[in-house]
Amino acid sequence: MLDLSALKFDQNGLIPVIVQDFSTNEILMLAYMNKESIDLTIETGYMHYFSRSRDKIWKKGETSGNFQKVKALYLDCDGDALLAVVEQTGVACHTGNKTCFFTNIFGEDKKSEVDILFKLIETINDRKK
Amino acid sequence: MLDLSALKFDQNGLIPVIVQDFSTNEILMLAYMNKESIDLTIETGYMHYFSRSRDKIWKKGETSGNFQKVKALYLDCDGDALLAVVEQTGVACHTGNKTCFFTNIFGEDKKSEVDILFKLIETINDRKK
Repeated sequence: MLDLSALKFDQNGLIPVIVQDFSTNEILMLAYMNKESIDLTIETGYMHYFSRSRDKIWKKGETSGNFQKVKALYLDCDGDALLAVVEQTGVACHTGNKTCFFTNIFGEDKKSEVDILFKLIETINDRKK
Repeated sequence: MLDLSALKFDQNGLIPVIVQDFSTNEILMLAYMNKESIDLTIETGYMHYFSRSRDKIWKKGETSGNFQKVKALYLDCDGDALLAVVEQTGVACHTGNKTCFFTNIFGEDKKSEVDILFKLIETINDRKK
């Protein structure tokens, strides 16, 4: 079991977790974990979260099949946020979008030269499968 | 002024914001914003946050000089998390690290082929300056 003593959970026993795609570095979603969901993630190798609306633990993909295999977990400098790097099956968002952050509310939609490289690498990797 | 009606702030009037580097797609930090700090960010073009520990608005870089120029803001599918894409001056973390998420607590430290490309692109961009 992972030593969770450095993690600062909030008053509800939760810590926010940024979920990032391993292959593209794209940000997929922001979710919350409690101690039990972290343990389940480590034990099974698949991301488990705590749903604040449903007030229970859920395995990402349990209904959609869009599982997230955990590659690495990082803790931030003040111990109150996690970063999970994952291999995403299918899409991350329940809307059918790859990422939950598809709504641009300010500035230009991010299409840097790096993004074009991402898409290229993703296409190459997809063709390898 | 930006229409913030789609944003769901928590009971303290805050919304978490994932901060991502525009050039490398690296995740720099997780912070919190209130309505006023979002307005200040849009007005000035530089990231402003709400500090929960100091209970006040701060402009990122106001003491360190490590400002964050906002390139774009995204809202997630259920309206309760933001993603800010920024041009980071210097490093994001007060520890001197580029990112606040430098502590690997599980899995192997992420060094995908994409990361190597990031570093290459960053080096090329730095040399252009």
